Amino acid sequence: MATSLISRQLAFSLQKNVWLSASGYRYVSKAAAKTQVEFDYDGPSMTTTVPGPRSQELMKQLGQIQNTGAINFFCNYEESKGNYLVDVDGNRMLDIYTQISSIPIGYNHPALLKVMTNPNNLSTFVNRPALGILPPENFPDKITESLLSVAPSGMTRVQTMSCGACSNENAYKAIFIWYRNKERGPNTPTNEELNTSMINQAPGCPELSILSFMGGFHGRTLGCLATTHSKAIHKLDIPSFDWPVAPFPRLQYPLDEFTRENAEEEARCLEEVEDLIVKWRQKGKPVAGIVIEPIQAEGGDNHASPDFFRRLRNIARKHGCAFHVDEVQTGGGGTGKFWAHEHWGMDDPADVVSFSKKLLSGGYYHKDELQADKPYRIFNTWMGDPSKNLFLSEVLNVIRRENLLEEVTRSGKALLNGLYELQAQYPSILSRARGQGTFCAIDACDDATRDRIMLKARDKGVLLGGCGDRTIRFRPALVFKEYHVNLFLNIFNDVLAQHK
Amino acid sequence: MATSLISRQLAFSLQKNVWLSASGYRYVSKAAAKTQVEFDYDGPSMTTTVPGPRSQELMKQLGQIQNTGAINFFCNYEESKGNYLVDVDGNRMLDIYTQISSIPIGYNHPALLKVMTNPNNLSTFVNRPALGILPPENFPDKITESLLSVAPSGMTRVQTMSCGACSNENAYKAIFIWYRNKERGPNTPTNEELNTSMINQAPGCPELSILSFMGGFHGRTLGCLATTHSKAIHKLDIPSFDWPVAPFPRLQYPLDEFTRENAEEEARCLEEVEDLIVKWRQKGKPVAGIVIEPIQAEGGDNHASPDFFRRLRNIARKHGCAFHVDEVQTGGGGTGKFWAHEHWGMDDPADVVSFSKKLLSGGYYHKDELQADKPYRIFNTWMGDPSKNLFLSEVLNVIRRENLLEEVTRSGKALLNGLYELQAQYPSILSRARGQGTFCAIDACDDATRDRIMLKARDKGVLLGGCGDRTIRFRPALVFKEYHVNLFLNIFNDVLAQHK
Repeated sequence: MATSLISRQLAFSLQKNVWLSASGYRYVSKAAAKTQVEFDYDGPSMTTTVPGPRSQELMKQLGQIQNTGAINFFCNYEESKGNYLVDVDGNRMLDIYTQISSIPIGYNHPALLKVMTNPNNLSTFVNRPALGILPPENFPDKITESLLSVAPSGMTRVQTMSCGACSNENAYKAIFIWYRNKERGPNTPTNEELNTSMINQAPGCPELSILSFMGGFHGRTLGCLATTHSKAIHKLDIPSFDWPVAPFPRLQYPLDEFTRENAEEEARCLEEVEDLIVKWRQKGKPVAGIVIEPIQAEGGDNHASPDFFRRLRNIARKHGCAFHVDEVQTGGGGTGKFWAHEHWGMDDPADVVSFSKKLLSGGYYHKDELQADKPYRIFNTWMGDPSKNLFLSEVLNVIRRENLLEEVTRSGKALLNGLYELQAQYPSILSRARGQGTFCAIDACDDATRDRIMLKARDKGVLLGGCGDRTIRFRPALVFKEYHVNLFLNIFNDVLAQHK
Repeated sequence: MATSLISRQLAFSLQKNVWLSASGYRYVSKAAAKTQVEFDYDGPSMTTTVPGPRSQELMKQLGQIQNTGAINFFCNYEESKGNYLVDVDGNRMLDIYTQISSIPIGYNHPALLKVMTNPNNLSTFVNRPALGILPPENFPDKITESLLSVAPSGMTRVQTMSCGACSNENAYKAIFIWYRNKERGPNTPTNEELNTSMINQAPGCPELSILSFMGGFHGRTLGCLATTHSKAIHKLDIPSFDWPVAPFPRLQYPLDEFTRENAEEEARCLEEVEDLIVKWRQKGKPVAGIVIEPIQAEGGDNHASPDFFRRLRNIARKHGCAFHVDEVQTGGGGTGKFWAHEHWGMDDPADVVSFSKKLLSGGYYHKDELQADKPYRIFNTWMGDPSKNLFLSEVLNVIRRENLLEEVTRSGKALLNGLYELQAQYPSILSRARGQGTFCAIDACDDATRDRIMLKARDKGVLLGGCGDRTIRFRPALVFKEYHVNLFLNIFNDVLAQHK
């Protein structure tokens, strides 16, 4: 009885969901591509200002349990679809922030719903394994068909983790272990090393460092936070390590109009990197690794040229530091390539590449020599989550089947051109439009204006994110088409026109 | 067409799964309780030694991708049920380690499978929100009915996180922020603090410390690792903080036979704690918090008395340090109470209680004053995972409906008595049996013997875990009944009898 009731419920739900794959909408716009998002709404629809009354009520309720200062509004994820996030007051917004850039192919994608309703997958969700000791039979195949199918050039090894911060923390550990093993050569650790390590002292816990960049963001746990330098409020009051912080190039945009100035700025930063490596070696805190984002995201969408990254990679090699590219936000297709570092055109772009967000759980790829020499050195209870990998396999299928990286490139061009036009039209409000793929950004004249514009856009049905001091960042899903670009540009134009 | 195919598949799968809730087995043994696990196998069944040929094949395949040194064998989670883990070679083992103590109510529990097949839950799995900014409508209700329904005494606030390490890292951050705000009083942070924080320097990144205990384990990310002191291999080569490490009492067992000696040992440790707090304050690295496990698990299942914890809690209060009880491994019912600290009988047991594992995702409860004063100070992209909370609600329902904490107390007594008998019978092999609920342990005479016994037991169908130097730890699920205790004791007795 119970069984048939559940299966009837399921059948009903699946019928209800038929619209997901059988929508009749075909968007037409002056620049619409032929490929369409087939499970999308046809535009924003607003019934209240945001947050509406129901969101405010829930905010009060949650305020009894947590700090709610960062909460935008409460969501109705059941009704959200494709590029549209629906809130609890019935407002439907075009989502160009996608849960801080972590929704790869839109809300409630039919392909992902199908993963859930495949009975063969049930036990993967219900029985979370300790992957490091007792993996499921299909684990090697699953990571081969998911993560390894998109492995960065030169890397055949990947360590899964649960989130971005854990990915970077463990990548740093792998770098430290690799660095000390290089120094140690054929010798085993001394008793002094083993004993001092137990009480946090050198030589067992050596004074090694990771070089990071001003404006960089690599997470908020204590190791990651020592390499994060985007906002003081993230770091204030938290003990840290004395690790070197290099300047990240502050380029002028559009890049191709300031080639000479930007090259000078990049050279200055690279020189500083080498100086810091030497200085910290002299201090007795050698730089074991360099960590950098291909585009600094949280820090304000700061770009650097492929040439900068190639030179930096060479500096790392020259000084024996591991080169760690943090693709937690840039990875997964938003720049028009699966990894942003592919834009550098290198066979050997990095020693470590970490990821999370759009890849649905965390981890890092690494060169063979960066694998820890012994078990339990890189380890924790869960070491990732195979249920997220099931979804990732399907996301990758959709990306390939629907040529989403090409779509992103196309939508990204339309978006950036639109932003160029808007900043020409509103030069007192907007400047420094920049981007790669749909991973775009534009600056407002100040933070108050930026915040006001974003709130107005939200009330008109467009959800955006901020970063840096006064930047608006665009982080749509990979199913954000030219149609959606035009929709956004029209609304944004209205907001700017009304802005006083 | 596609719809009806999927719903037929599902109906078929649900029929296949009927045995899960309609098994006819009723176990009878000399001490079997009336309540039974209704979805269990009737015993271990071994076809090969472990790891069998298929596991070895997969080990080679995964060895191309990861370090496999810690892998025991590969599992067939689809066929695993209740207390039994089935491997890829068809071996079925009584699991008394449960994925490092993280499976609360056994494999493929029908109540959890039901969560998966409830169509209302689909979108929670498919659309992972950024909980800190865009929570789902039911989030306040869901954490109220799950996490808050088991909140430790004196705590009405909880911050969800993805795993144990992130939970502790963020709890430490909350402690540092609270501590500095206490010092700062009504003043706002100075510009010097804000500026120095950006480059990891004091006063913005102050030299505060967390006091931890030798033998303690709180995770492996860099902040957590500075408070972890269980094994050198976990810490070797990783930079750390100069934080104080106090001795954890090394008690003699059974506890009630060594009351005087143990009280002296505990007094010695508490004295050392106070000395360290004073010393580190003088060093300019004041102790902002004390972190401790109610039973040191990874470090070798070391117990201390309720009196010890009460006195320690008072020392923390006296010196203005936050008292953080790490219940990542002890929480969730294994000790016969939902939280191990409930055994201390205190109204105000802690300022922070962190959890993960059996609670299926991480987080920490905290007193009101430990809530960060501003948004984005305790923050990351996902801040937990509502899909795990769906399962947790159901786990808590099962625990209540089936009185599993009483069951654990009953099974635990049988297990500990059985261990006492075995160590009396094999005094040259076993000693120091100890435990609370089914959270039990026993020491072997040395590590080689311990490892050999565990491997032999595994080949006979019992999966155990080690901890410390030569300890075997028991971490069954909450559905481990007296019947299973007897099954285990019989097999373990055979192993010991054959041990040379």
